[in-house]
Amino acid sequence: MRVLGIDPGTSQMGIGVIEGERNGYQLLNFETVRVGAKLTLPERLKQIHEAVRESLERFSPDVLALENVFFDKNVRSMVKIGEARACAMLAAAEKGVAVFEYPPARIKQAICGNGQATKFQIQQMVRSLLKLKTTPPEDAADALAVALCHIHSHNVRIPVG
Amino acid sequence: MRVLGIDPGTSQMGIGVIEGERNGYQLLNFETVRVGAKLTLPERLKQIHEAVRESLERFSPDVLALENVFFDKNVRSMVKIGEARACAMLAAAEKGVAVFEYPPARIKQAICGNGQATKFQIQQMVRSLLKLKTTPPEDAADALAVALCHIHSHNVRIPVG
Repeated sequence: MRVLGIDPGTSQMGIGVIEGERNGYQLLNFETVRVGAKLTLPERLKQIHEAVRESLERFSPDVLALENVFFDKNVRSMVKIGEARACAMLAAAEKGVAVFEYPPARIKQAICGNGQATKFQIQQMVRSLLKLKTTPPEDAADALAVALCHIHSHNVRIPVG
Repeated sequence: MRVLGIDPGTSQMGIGVIEGERNGYQLLNFETVRVGAKLTLPERLKQIHEAVRESLERFSPDVLALENVFFDKNVRSMVKIGEARACAMLAAAEKGVAVFEYPPARIKQAICGNGQATKFQIQQMVRSLLKLKTTPPEDAADALAVALCHIHSHNVRIPVG
């Protein structure tokens, strides 16, 4: 199974691609997309949509996985994340790729064994699980973490409703 | 000037097209798009994006106008509206069409002379201003109202940031 993990945001976005199953997987790619700060919101959404579409075309994943909208945060930042998520999900729907989503605590639990893990702990565990020589930046680590969470979740996977 | 007004939503969406200037305008089209209730969220976003893109292609508007996200509402419904708005703005960016947005109270003020106007009052005023024989349904009336607001706003128009 090949999983494209996305950590969406309207200022930057993490993308990670992992191939494998629970008992063995490997990193195919990770990157951080910096969304043009001087662009208008519609132009930024276009950039996000294009970046996700390019990854879908390049890696032909079976699944796109992302974090749930986290309903505790500042309302404006939630709406911004929702806008970026929408463009990522749209790109998946256009390619016929199924979308799955996981709550932040579940992702942390899957990666670190602790639903309260910090960003730093996520980065270190992603590095260790994927046997990387360097630590991926936060957004890319979050994208890889949600992809790993999907792979580890096995028969309790959550399709977007 | 030709304006495409959108009232975005993930269960149904209003679309309205008006041609003209402050001192004279006419209706070109209005419709309500019912978004498939049984579809997954990514599929619904795809349907919204396609409907907006089709209207952009059919009518070649100069501008897309929509309501601001209204930061008072239920948080979940705000995120849903944000997702639908994102797909509409993306379609505009893909066609190089500028996007403008207006607060709900400003739209009501422009159409009814009262920032607290009801949905029913908006429908009646839209019908009257556009000399329609029947009253457009709520979503279509809201889409026409935001397009009319843009036309009336003249030199105080609000591009999306």
